[in-house]
Amino acid sequence: MIIPNMHYAELKNSYLFYNIAQKTKAYLAEHPDSRLYRLGIGDVTLPLCDAVIKALHEAVDDQADLKRFHGYMPECGDPSLRALIAGHYRKRGIALEDDEVFVSSGASDELGDILHLFDRQSSALVIEPAYPAYVDANVMEGRTIVHLPSGKADAFLPEPSESAKAGLLYICSPNNPTGAVFSREKLQKWIDFANANGSVILFDAAYEAFIEDETLPRSIFELEGARTCAIEICSLSKTAGFTGTRFGYTVIPKDLVRNGMSFNEMWVRNRTTRTNGVSYILQKAAAAVFTEEGQKQIAENIHFYKENARILTEALDEAGIWYTGGKNAPYIWMECPDGMDSWKFFDYLLQEIQVVGTPGEGFGSCGEGYFRFSTFGSREDTLEAAKRIKRLFR
Amino acid sequence: MIIPNMHYAELKNSYLFYNIAQKTKAYLAEHPDSRLYRLGIGDVTLPLCDAVIKALHEAVDDQADLKRFHGYMPECGDPSLRALIAGHYRKRGIALEDDEVFVSSGASDELGDILHLFDRQSSALVIEPAYPAYVDANVMEGRTIVHLPSGKADAFLPEPSESAKAGLLYICSPNNPTGAVFSREKLQKWIDFANANGSVILFDAAYEAFIEDETLPRSIFELEGARTCAIEICSLSKTAGFTGTRFGYTVIPKDLVRNGMSFNEMWVRNRTTRTNGVSYILQKAAAAVFTEEGQKQIAENIHFYKENARILTEALDEAGIWYTGGKNAPYIWMECPDGMDSWKFFDYLLQEIQVVGTPGEGFGSCGEGYFRFSTFGSREDTLEAAKRIKRLFR
Repeated sequence: MIIPNMHYAELKNSYLFYNIAQKTKAYLAEHPDSRLYRLGIGDVTLPLCDAVIKALHEAVDDQADLKRFHGYMPECGDPSLRALIAGHYRKRGIALEDDEVFVSSGASDELGDILHLFDRQSSALVIEPAYPAYVDANVMEGRTIVHLPSGKADAFLPEPSESAKAGLLYICSPNNPTGAVFSREKLQKWIDFANANGSVILFDAAYEAFIEDETLPRSIFELEGARTCAIEICSLSKTAGFTGTRFGYTVIPKDLVRNGMSFNEMWVRNRTTRTNGVSYILQKAAAAVFTEEGQKQIAENIHFYKENARILTEALDEAGIWYTGGKNAPYIWMECPDGMDSWKFFDYLLQEIQVVGTPGEGFGSCGEGYFRFSTFGSREDTLEAAKRIKRLFR
Repeated sequence: MIIPNMHYAELKNSYLFYNIAQKTKAYLAEHPDSRLYRLGIGDVTLPLCDAVIKALHEAVDDQADLKRFHGYMPECGDPSLRALIAGHYRKRGIALEDDEVFVSSGASDELGDILHLFDRQSSALVIEPAYPAYVDANVMEGRTIVHLPSGKADAFLPEPSESAKAGLLYICSPNNPTGAVFSREKLQKWIDFANANGSVILFDAAYEAFIEDETLPRSIFELEGARTCAIEICSLSKTAGFTGTRFGYTVIPKDLVRNGMSFNEMWVRNRTTRTNGVSYILQKAAAAVFTEEGQKQIAENIHFYKENARILTEALDEAGIWYTGGKNAPYIWMECPDGMDSWKFFDYLLQEIQVVGTPGEGFGSCGEGYFRFSTFGSREDTLEAAKRIKRLFR
C-alpha cells in the first residue's frame, strides 16, 4: 500500500570519490614508503577561531546552568542572530529586513530542504560542471533537469539563453568546482532572465568570503532586481571552518512572490512545521563569527588558504597551464595538459609526483579534460605539490 | 515559470499557542500582581547533565586544535556513535546492525525529512488527538490524510480497522498529547496490520525514556514483525534535555523493503545527497548520553519530571478527574470536568487558580473536552498548581 519515492531508482551512482580512494589505496599498497600530497578534498583543515571557541564554551556553560539554560529555539533562528546577519549585509549596503534571514544547519542541508517550496513540475537548470547534489536532489524529486554546459570559451561562466530556460536556476559563484566568479554584468543578465521568465535563482554563496576583487558581487542582492527572483544560500563551512561544526543561513526576500505565494512566508511555515530550530550552542558560535573580532580572525584563516591558492596558481602560471579560480575562490580548475582526459591526468599526477586532485569528469561530462585542486590542504602539502608540479611541467 | 508548492495554501493556521499567549497576556494586564503557574509548555527546564557538558567542552576544545579538529562528519553519523546507539538497543535484547541507526538533528526535523522516501500518492494515517506537525507535514506534500479519532472509550489507544488503512501510519507512544502508551498486545495489532497491508509505521518514540512499566514496549522493535514495517524516530530532547541543543536518531531496518526498494539504502542516499551530517560537537554530546555515567545522570532528570507527574496525578486522583498519561509519559491528559469545553476550561483555570495548560481541541477535534498538562515545569509551579487544583475541585 505504501509507495516508495521511486525516483530514487533513477539516481546514478557516483564513483568519483570512491574511485579516488581506491586508486590512492592501490598506489600506497604498491609504494608503502611513499607519501601523498592531497589537494583533492574540499574540507577545511584549520581549527575554529578563538572568538568562536570562546562563544562555544560559554554557550555550553549556559546549558549547564538552570537559570541560563536554553530549550527550544525559535525555528527560523534566534532574533538577535537574524538581526546580526542582516546587519552584516546592511554594512555592505544591502537593505535586508531581519526576518528575511533564516538560520540553517548548513548550505548542503538547506539546498535540499528549500526544494520543498517548489512544485515538482518546475524544471531546474544546472550549469555544469557542478556540485553533484544539485542534480541528484532534483532527480530524487522527479524534476526535469536542464543541463547547461560551460567551458573554456566562456571561462566556465555561461550566459542565459533560450535553452537555459527553467523554473529553478542554480547559480554557484564563486563556483565549485571551477572557482570561476560571475561579474556584476554577467550575474545581472541571469537576474534579468529570471525576472523575465518568472524563474527563481538559488544562489549558492558558500564561497563568497573568498572574493577579494571588490568589483565582483559577493551577494546576489548587491544587484538590481534580485529581490524579486533570488534566494541566497550561505554557509560558515568555508567562511569560518564550520564544515564539521555546521551552520548556515539563507536570505529569502519578501519581494519574492510567485502565483500569489510569498516564499518568505512559506519558509516560515516550513520551518515551524518541519524543524525545532538550530542548536542554541551553534547559534552562539555563529554570532561570534559576525562580531568585529570574529570577522578579523576568520579573515586570517581565509588568508592562509588564499596563500595556498597563490602558491599553486604560481606553479600553474610557471607551467603555462590554463585555469580558472584560485584568485577569488578556494578551488583551482585547470586544463589537463596535452589533451589528457581527467582520470588519465589523475593517474599521471599520482604516479609521477604523488599529488592527489579531483578529476573534472566527476562534476559532469563537460568537466572532462579538467582537474580540480583544493586550497584547503596543509601548507606543507601545498608547497611540496607546487614544487613537484613545476618540476613535472618544466 | 516556477510553480510554488501550492499545497502550502491548503495549510490551516493553528492559533493554539498564539491564543494561549494572548489570553495569558490579557490576564496579566488585568491582574499585574498575579503570578501564573505554567504547565502548558512541552519544553524541558533542567540543564544538561554533567557528562554531556563535559563532552561538549571537550569537543569544543577539539575544534580549537589543529591536530584534533574535525571537518565534515559522515552524513549518516559517526560510526562509533551509530555503534554505541545500536549497542544500547542490543543491551535491551533488540538485534540491530550499527548501520540501521542514523543520527539526526532531532525528531521533529526527521519526521519531516523522512517523508521524502515516500511517494506523495501514499496516504497517511494520523491517530488523533495528535502532534499538529503530523498533519501539516503531509498537507504540505498533498498527501491524503486518514484521520482516526480516539477517545475515552479506547483510552486514546485505538485499534486498527478497515477505516484506518493508509500507506503511512503515524504511531506516537508514549503519546503527545495524551500520554497514553500502547501495550505490547495493542502495538502488535498495528504491526500485523501494517505488514498485512504493506504499510509503513512511523513510530515516534520521543518519550520512550519515560516508560517505567517494564511490560510496555519502549521500542517497536521489541515486537515481532516490526523489522519489515517500521521506522523508529527517537530524540534526546526529552530523554536528555536536548530541546535547545538538538540531537536525534532514527532506526531503519534493512528488512524494510517495498516495491524492491530498501528504505535503509534510500535513506543513505538521501543523507549523502541532502546533508553534510550532524555537528561533531553535538555527536560527542550524544555519545556521552549513552555512557553508563550519562544514563545514570539523565535518569535523575527524568526522575525529577516524573515526580512532577506524581504530584499532579495525585491531585487529579484526589479530585476524581479521569486522565491518561503521567505514569509512563511526561504528559497528563485530563477530562474537563462538568462537560466544559477545553477553551472554557482553560479560561476557568486561568481565572480561578492562575494555572496555564493546553486545551485539547488544539490537537484535533476529538481532543475537545480534554486538557493537557506538561510535567516539564519547575517543581515550585507544579506543587502550587497541584495545591490549587485540589482546592478548586474539593
